[in-house]
Amino acid sequence: MIHFEVIKKHSHSSARLGLLTTARGKIETPCFMPVGTQATVKALTPDDLRGFGAQIILGNTYHLYLRPGHELIRSLGGLHKFMNWPHPILTDSGGFQVFSLNELAKVSEEGVAFQSHLDGSSHFISPERSIEIQEALGADIIMAFDEPTPHTADLGQTEKSLLLTTRWAKRCKDALQSEDQALFGIVQGGMFPELRQQSARQIMDIDFPGYAIGGLSVGEEKSLMYDITGHTAPLLPANKPRYLMGVGTPEDLLQCSSMGVDMFDCVMPTRNARNGSLFVKGGRINLRNAQYKSDSGPIEADCPCYTCKNFSRAYLRHLLMAGEILAMRLLTLHNSTFYQQWMASLRKAIAEDVPFNLDWSDQILSG
Amino acid sequence: MIHFEVIKKHSHSSARLGLLTTARGKIETPCFMPVGTQATVKALTPDDLRGFGAQIILGNTYHLYLRPGHELIRSLGGLHKFMNWPHPILTDSGGFQVFSLNELAKVSEEGVAFQSHLDGSSHFISPERSIEIQEALGADIIMAFDEPTPHTADLGQTEKSLLLTTRWAKRCKDALQSEDQALFGIVQGGMFPELRQQSARQIMDIDFPGYAIGGLSVGEEKSLMYDITGHTAPLLPANKPRYLMGVGTPEDLLQCSSMGVDMFDCVMPTRNARNGSLFVKGGRINLRNAQYKSDSGPIEADCPCYTCKNFSRAYLRHLLMAGEILAMRLLTLHNSTFYQQWMASLRKAIAEDVPFNLDWSDQILSG
Repeated sequence: MIHFEVIKKHSHSSARLGLLTTARGKIETPCFMPVGTQATVKALTPDDLRGFGAQIILGNTYHLYLRPGHELIRSLGGLHKFMNWPHPILTDSGGFQVFSLNELAKVSEEGVAFQSHLDGSSHFISPERSIEIQEALGADIIMAFDEPTPHTADLGQTEKSLLLTTRWAKRCKDALQSEDQALFGIVQGGMFPELRQQSARQIMDIDFPGYAIGGLSVGEEKSLMYDITGHTAPLLPANKPRYLMGVGTPEDLLQCSSMGVDMFDCVMPTRNARNGSLFVKGGRINLRNAQYKSDSGPIEADCPCYTCKNFSRAYLRHLLMAGEILAMRLLTLHNSTFYQQWMASLRKAIAEDVPFNLDWSDQILSG
Repeated sequence: MIHFEVIKKHSHSSARLGLLTTARGKIETPCFMPVGTQATVKALTPDDLRGFGAQIILGNTYHLYLRPGHELIRSLGGLHKFMNWPHPILTDSGGFQVFSLNELAKVSEEGVAFQSHLDGSSHFISPERSIEIQEALGADIIMAFDEPTPHTADLGQTEKSLLLTTRWAKRCKDALQSEDQALFGIVQGGMFPELRQQSARQIMDIDFPGYAIGGLSVGEEKSLMYDITGHTAPLLPANKPRYLMGVGTPEDLLQCSSMGVDMFDCVMPTRNARNGSLFVKGGRINLRNAQYKSDSGPIEADCPCYTCKNFSRAYLRHLLMAGEILAMRLLTLHNSTFYQQWMASLRKAIAEDVPFNLDWSDQILSG
């Protein structure tokens, strides 16, 4: 199981410096979890991940269930051994992908029927089935199976959905047999503060070792995402980790850390990298831009990543334009390093109790 | 420039153990040069290359001329600096690709007119232009611009082609201004031993610091390739390096090393890797095969590569089937390591003057 300790509170915001201890290692929070959808953070090895300081990564249950299959992974010793990552892993429940990758997914009280995005085959995932799959994968932290609510849902739809999520959360807890996996509950409630409060109360009543805020960063206005996060985070127990799912830009990480969120995940650094969109102090640059064609400098002068220490923008742009696989790895290394460095700087600010540099990030890190 | 020394002759074959010294480092021969077409050996970093013992790599002039352009590379300090590979590089002349990638290439006494395979734009490369481009790239060893002869050409066509190659070789030598690049001549003559002899004599008359055998491994029968190599290699000066272009399988490297060839290059280890075709003792395996789906063992038990030390066939097969970029890197690492280990074992056999294990390789390494 896990142990969470708040080491220091930020006097300038609601941010907390925390230490999340699992059987496979400690995680300093606030933390960012690189996304390893298909048992790999795209283009990176486990050595690469440790090299830039990743302490925990995320795996996607939906994808791993469909390919290569959770029973195969179980038979090979679980996800950690399968991908040779002996450090902490969190798996999501599959709920989000079932909906986002299957427009015709059918929800019932029992669960969700859907077709595989790979081959169209029919599948059914219930709360119990999600827990069974996540137990086979063996992540250190697993998530309750929820129904994500569209941000356009009205109050009635949203309440109906959050009530289903509550019933499913209870079934998830009842289904869990593994004693060394920590199951987190997920708060839904869409864009309605009163429903967020209702969901938080119900999910906390079930009692989990950690709580996530779900259903945000799904198309709503940024200010609304901040409002709902700022409203919801303080409703959650101060002594347990708070995880904001699927968020976000470097600025989002700063803003939401300051609201008391401890854990984040997002495909942004890795996906952007593969498109040539790179995070630098001063904003983002798109390496496809012709202005970098003969630029002999690194992506970022003081970045400690292998890419910045060894290669010029001109070379990296060439690899990108030529469709070379090496570009994917080198650019992913940079963006991932940027994110880990960014979280380390937030933790340092909390440890030293100095204000987050909001103006600065506002200006240069609007992702 | 370069210095070549034959350190030991194999008493069981015509193989030689050599040391090729360049300003940027020494190369033990017989050697295999990984192919870095577009200023990268696909999916690998310079650290990866050094990790498995590559001492020299090959760059393709045709590709680099078209993208990013040789003048850009020159302005950034040359190919070594551009790709951060401070060790020896050999560039080809562009001749082979001009023909193989452009069905409508038009040859005249002056040179070759062709359209870019990237955007259809018109280009012209002459012997002088090829040398100018290769000087801009700055490789340690550069190649004369030749006309590769189709293996189906008759004796008349082949002789006409080799005579043009001879005139072009002379023009290449006359055009070379750089004093720190070694220009190798190329022997043509197709599938006709008497024409190989004629070409070798003419090219040696011009006098180069090294000689290549071109126009082989282009579709002819394997036994014919061996016959022509075995006929041509001993015609070349014993005190200069001999390079068999575009060859080949592990067995080819063994067979042709035993004929006195010192240098090889081929896309086979890297391209095959990306398709899941892996070299192992005992032959080749295709990782896409369902039999590896739950195989918990490494690609090869005693292989020293990062991939074999860290990942199972089942995991690598999953990455490959899922189209993950990481598969490209890990499988390329394995095949490239296999090739370097293979060359090291040939050099060891020469050094210890034990016979090459032809039966063994015959049986298990027919690529």
